Order: sequence, then structure tokens, then C-alpha cells
Amino acid sequence: MFRRLMTFDEAKKVISEQLKPEALGEEEISLLEAHDRVLRENVVSVLEIPPFNRSTVDGYAVKAGDTFGAEENQPVTLSVRGVVNVGEPPNISIGKGEAAEIVTGAPIPDGADAVVMVEDTDREDVELRVYRAITKDENVMKKGTDIKKGETALKAGQVLSASEIGVLAALGLTKIKVFTLPIVAVLSTGGEITEPGKELPAGKIYDINAYSLSTAVRESGGKPVYLGVVPDDKAELRKALENALASADLVLTSGGVSVGPRDLTPQIVDSLGKLGVLVSGIAVKPGKPTTIALVGRKPVFSLPGHPTSALLMFHLLARPVIQIMSGRTATEAKTVKALAAARMFSAKGRRTFVMVKLKRNKLAGFVAEPVETGASGAITTLAKADGYVEVPENQQFIDAGEEVDVALLKGAVCTRV
Amino acid sequence: MFRRLMTFDEAKKVISEQLKPEALGEEEISLLEAHDRVLRENVVSVLEIPPFNRSTVDGYAVKAGDTFGAEENQPVTLSVRGVVNVGEPPNISIGKGEAAEIVTGAPIPDGADAVVMVEDTDREDVELRVYRAITKDENVMKKGTDIKKGETALKAGQVLSASEIGVLAALGLTKIKVFTLPIVAVLSTGGEITEPGKELPAGKIYDINAYSLSTAVRESGGKPVYLGVVPDDKAELRKALENALASADLVLTSGGVSVGPRDLTPQIVDSLGKLGVLVSGIAVKPGKPTTIALVGRKPVFSLPGHPTSALLMFHLLARPVIQIMSGRTATEAKTVKALAAARMFSAKGRRTFVMVKLKRNKLAGFVAEPVETGASGAITTLAKADGYVEVPENQQFIDAGEEVDVALLKGAVCTRV
Repeated sequence: MFRRLMTFDEAKKVISEQLKPEALGEEEISLLEAHDRVLRENVVSVLEIPPFNRSTVDGYAVKAGDTFGAEENQPVTLSVRGVVNVGEPPNISIGKGEAAEIVTGAPIPDGADAVVMVEDTDREDVELRVYRAITKDENVMKKGTDIKKGETALKAGQVLSASEIGVLAALGLTKIKVFTLPIVAVLSTGGEITEPGKELPAGKIYDINAYSLSTAVRESGGKPVYLGVVPDDKAELRKALENALASADLVLTSGGVSVGPRDLTPQIVDSLGKLGVLVSGIAVKPGKPTTIALVGRKPVFSLPGHPTSALLMFHLLARPVIQIMSGRTATEAKTVKALAAARMFSAKGRRTFVMVKLKRNKLAGFVAEPVETGASGAITTLAKADGYVEVPENQQFIDAGEEVDVALLKGAVCTRV
Repeated sequence: MFRRLMTFDEAKKVISEQLKPEALGEEEISLLEAHDRVLRENVVSVLEIPPFNRSTVDGYAVKAGDTFGAEENQPVTLSVRGVVNVGEPPNISIGKGEAAEIVTGAPIPDGADAVVMVEDTDREDVELRVYRAITKDENVMKKGTDIKKGETALKAGQVLSASEIGVLAALGLTKIKVFTLPIVAVLSTGGEITEPGKELPAGKIYDINAYSLSTAVRESGGKPVYLGVVPDDKAELRKALENALASADLVLTSGGVSVGPRDLTPQIVDSLGKLGVLVSGIAVKPGKPTTIALVGRKPVFSLPGHPTSALLMFHLLARPVIQIMSGRTATEAKTVKALAAARMFSAKGRRTFVMVKLKRNKLAGFVAEPVETGASGAITTLAKADGYVEVPENQQFIDAGEEVDVALLKGAVCTRV
């Protein structure tokens, strides 16, 4: 079992080189349920789109050549053969000197090669006067101009929003193959915590992490399985971890990883299978006791018990793994520039993440104000912080007034920057 | 029925003053399902958090006064009375000259008022030497310092992310009251369209809008009800609109609103109840035929058939209404600054929205490149455009190289700006 404190960069390297996260399997789902899911394979069009030459205006389908020389005061006269309805194959064809009434979206009839707009014409019974010369293909959207048969309309890995789902509908699809959601088991340990919804025994506090981490899993593209609080007992914890590994693709625990005598989680995880614990403590603040293991092909992240530390370490280390397992690209946190409102110190030899709240400042854009993360702000910090500022290991502090990058924990602040 | 083309600003005013959207009812849901939902009421804590004075370190609970004068080379000696376990009420109390072993998170025993860290002590059996003087409350997180009983922990209207859900768990809650999701019926009309998943008849194209708009509803905090394609027939359309109004809080239609002879939707909507059609055409490009009605208390947005126009008008006009109905603040689109890659013209007298793709440029940050939205790009534009640039009614064009605000249709581009 690995015991040396790793640097943050070493821990990241273990994740990419030893955990080697990969996208999971595929499933077929309804296009109406596909919002925010990830395409499993390239989607190749089996259709020309549009599937026929369409009129883009209301007017008359004609042979463009017949309108040559037409002018405001010198119209060309054509003979109207009939009407082309929208949504039906045309039942007429156009010969020299002829025209057919047509509306936007209707198919161009045989023989016609352009559409003159209704406002450039004047009609009396079947006699149509055209006051403007048009060119071949004018006001015609030709078959296949939007998407060609055989063309790749969307690529594997595409995250589906309203517009991509519109493209898939255009291709006639109602079901598509997407990557399965990684199932993430979330459990909390620690003798001092009890599950919300139950009575609070003397000496205990309610568990926060299984709830906040389950939500963070959802926000990262995973499917959380809430396993709640596991009693601080070796046999029970072992059973819970075995169950979690059997039913999930990744396991998140919190609590039980500091240096106290009862911190069993890493020991048990290490005994459950190869490769076992790969990272046992990281030179960061907060989050130092974080351990990372691999049991078979399943990563296990054991996060600290402090709610803000647990959520921060999740964002920095577990979130990118879940994103990759869901078929996404691991995204770095969104950042905004801000001025440091106060001096921010690094803990000696540890990469330090200072939780901050962003405030708007007319002159400077944003100002980043540190939020206390220590003893007195365990819970409220969570709701107050917008993001964090990274102070490198080898730097003593960032001074007040210096420009910093604030990495955002939520998506909401990224407006009009 | 209102027939004059309104300006964009007039249409927005009709929405705020005549549609007067409001948040809908409430429902109680599980905290584990509450991600991205909106709190219905203020959440007032019925607990002190923490509920007791807690140690923030591993060490010994003592009377701070007993350590006065303690120094590295001149320790104070105390007598260890026992151990305080985590998660249990202490079964000992501390008198003058006494100490109790304690771990992080455990309750401070009666008589003690501070905790000396284990690294500042040295112990032999029950004899504890303390090498550092500490002050009252040192290493103690006092009852109620995080959240006081009676304090408002979160306010009504808060959108719930991982951190707020953590706060609610800390209060012991597993169910919370949130605003109900506005139910939005989505249907498409038009003789040229047919539902995806069925065979494509000659002369028809697959419907896009019911799919893209259903997804956009979800992205805006609403619950879409897909009603598919309604045949272009007065009786059928009337029945479909009546059903939609009976089952949903808001109705979105697309197609059937241009000036063609078969454009029935606004006529029928106007006949279904007061106030009827309030906006019948808007001086914008694209999206001019958009109509907005109110039937009883239910808004009906009739959007154009062109997929990009429909989605754009949805974003500009319907999305803010759905956001307010879901208990949110109507958010303006996120914007990023970019340089115009080409001259962008406005349509005469109409506010013009130019669909653009953002490209990164080392010198300039972002460059906004117009994407063709006309005849030849009905579908692919949807997937290619990142957002739009607004050209005011009274301005002829925005020139290439000018700085523009690009309003984003998706959330994804707002990184490292």
C-alpha cells in the first residue's frame, strides 16, 4: 500500500496512466430523452436533405430561361398549368412558356428550374405576367444541399442539445445509440454522522457528503446510487464496499480517511482486489487525506469527511474520470479572471485551493473574496463559495490586488465576463 | 385580432404586461432528486449546526486556563481522565488540572473549553505534558457557528446544485418543497412535414421542431409534452390545440404562421378564449411571423416553421416565460465578446439576429463567423451556430472587425474568455 504523500500532479498522472478511464457501453434511447447524452457512434444520413428540390418562397415554378428579358415595364407572359401542393409529389410538369403555382416548401415540378416570387408577378386567370428575370435555381433549395446521403451529420462523442436533436429528427431518427451513464455508488463513513431524515442522536451530525456528492455526480454526467451512511465497523464497511463495487462502475466514499485509529476505508479497499490503493494522501490543502484505488477495473475515490474538501477533491479528481466514462471529454473547470480581495497563502509544500466568492466590481470586473473553509464554515462555505483559486506549491502567497483565475464550482457565474 | 407588425421591444412588453408569467404551484420531492430544481420557500434551520461544541483536531480537551505559561521547554502537566468518543455524548467531565482524549468531530466534554493538539503534547499513562499555552475556544467549533437555529439557511427561488443540496442534508431534510415544472405542450403543423420514425412520403420532410423545441423546453426548466405533427386540417388542429391547452401550462406550436392561405394556427388560437392573439408578427429577422396569444391564463407561442428561426424565437421570447413559470429568474443569454468576421447587415426596419459560429483567434480571443441561415442551411445551421449577434433596427450593418456581443444558444463556449 502506497504511503508517501503524492504531489497533485503525480496524483493526476496516476489517474490517467493507471486508472485509465474509458467510456462504458452503449444503449439505445428515445430521441426525446436524449438531452445531454453523448452519441455513441457517427450518425450517417441515409437521406438526401431536403429529399427533393423545394421552393423557398411562395410564387410560380417556371423555366428560368422563359423569364429572360422580363422587366418592370416589360413583363413576360406565361401560362399557369395548375398548382403544386405542399407535402405531395407534383402531378404536373412544366413545358416551355408554362408555370405552376407553388408555396414555400413544396416540390419543384418536372420541367421547372426556378421559382419567381409572387410579388414579381401579376395574374389574370391562367395568364401570368412576370416582371423580373430570374436565374436557374433561384428560390430553389436543391435536393441534398443541407445534408447529403452518406454524409456524417453528427460525430460520435457529440453531447446532444436542442439543435443536435433537431438534426437527428431531420434524419428521421427517433432512437439513437448513446453511451451508458456511469453508475457511481456514493457512501459516507464516520462514527459522528447519521442519515438525514432520521432523528439526530446526541453527539452526531447529519451526513452531508452522500447528498452533495450524489448531486455532483449527476452534474458530471453520471448516475448516482445513494448508499447513505455506513457504520464505522470493519465488517459492515467491507460488505458495503463489496456491494458498491458489484453494482457500480465507480465508488465514492467520504470520511474515514484521516489519520485517526478508526480510518478503515483505505485498508479495506486495498484488500478488495488489485491494483489496490494507488494514491494515499496528496500534498494539497484542503483534501490531503484523499486516497485513490483501483479494484479490478473500477476506480474508488475515498474523499475527506469535511464537506467542502470532499466536493473540491471530487471536482478536481473524480469528475474528469466520470466525464470520460460517460463518453465526454474531461473538461477543466470554467474560469473567470478576478482580482484577489485579500492575500491568499499556500500551505507549506502543498498546492492550496482557496475557496472564494466572486463579487462584481465596476472597475475591475470581478473581485475574489476568500470564504473561510476551516472549522467554522464547514457547511455554509459550500453554499457561499463560487469557486476556488489555486496557489502553487512553490509560491508563498498571492497578494491582494493580483489578478487570479477563479475556477468555478457551479456554472452560473459565467455571464458577461 | 392584432394585425400590425410589432417591434421586438413591443412584443417583449406584451409578454411582461399581458402574459404576466408567474411561478406555478409547489410539490414535495426527495432531496436526492432535487438537482436543478427551485426552492419554493425559505428554509429555516430547526437545528443549531453544529448541534454541540465540536473538536476540530485530534488531541486533548482541557480548561484553557490550565495551559497558561506552558512552553516548549516548560510543559504544564495535566491528568487524563478518559476518552471522548466521536458520535456519542461525553460520559466524563473535566475539572481543574484534568484532560480528556478527543478526536476531530467529537463533542467537547463539560468543564473543557479548548482542545490542545496531540502534537503539542506528550503522554505517559494518565500523565499529559502540554508544551503550548492555548486560549479559550481554541480548536473548538462552537454550537451554532455554522447555522443558527431559526436562521434562514437558503432562500425561496434558489436553484439547487450540489452545494445547496449539501446544506439541506446538513439540516436533516430529505424532502423539500420546490416549484412544479411548467408543462409545455409542443406540436408542429404544416402539410409538408411528417413525424420521424415513420416512412417518408414523397414531397414531405421530417419534422424537426417538435424535437428541438421539446429539448429546449427541458433546457429552460420546463417539462415538455411531445404532441408531434398535427395534420393541416382546421378541425384536427383545433382539437389538438384544445387538448394541449387542457393538459399543459404553456403551448408551443411551429409552422403554419406565415402568410400562406393554409396558415390556420393563429386564427384557431384566437377563437379558443380571451385574450386571444396579442402579437401577430414581429419586426425581426428571422422570425417575423411569430404570434403570441393568451388563452385564459395560458400563453401560446406560435413559432415559424424554419427550424433555426423557431429555436431562435423560442430562446428570445418563450424561454424567459418558462423560466419564470419554473420559479427562476428569467436569464438573458450568456454573451461573449468577439470580433465580427464579416459585415452583418440588418433587414430594413427589422431587428436582425445573425447566427454565428465562434472561432478562437490567438490575437482577438473570439471571432464571430456568420452561418448561412437561409434556404440552404435550414438544418445544419442549427448544429453549426454557437449563438447570434443582434443588429439593431436603426443600424444598417455591423462592419467586419467591429467588436460584437455574441449571445450563446448553448452553454458550452463560455470557457476561459
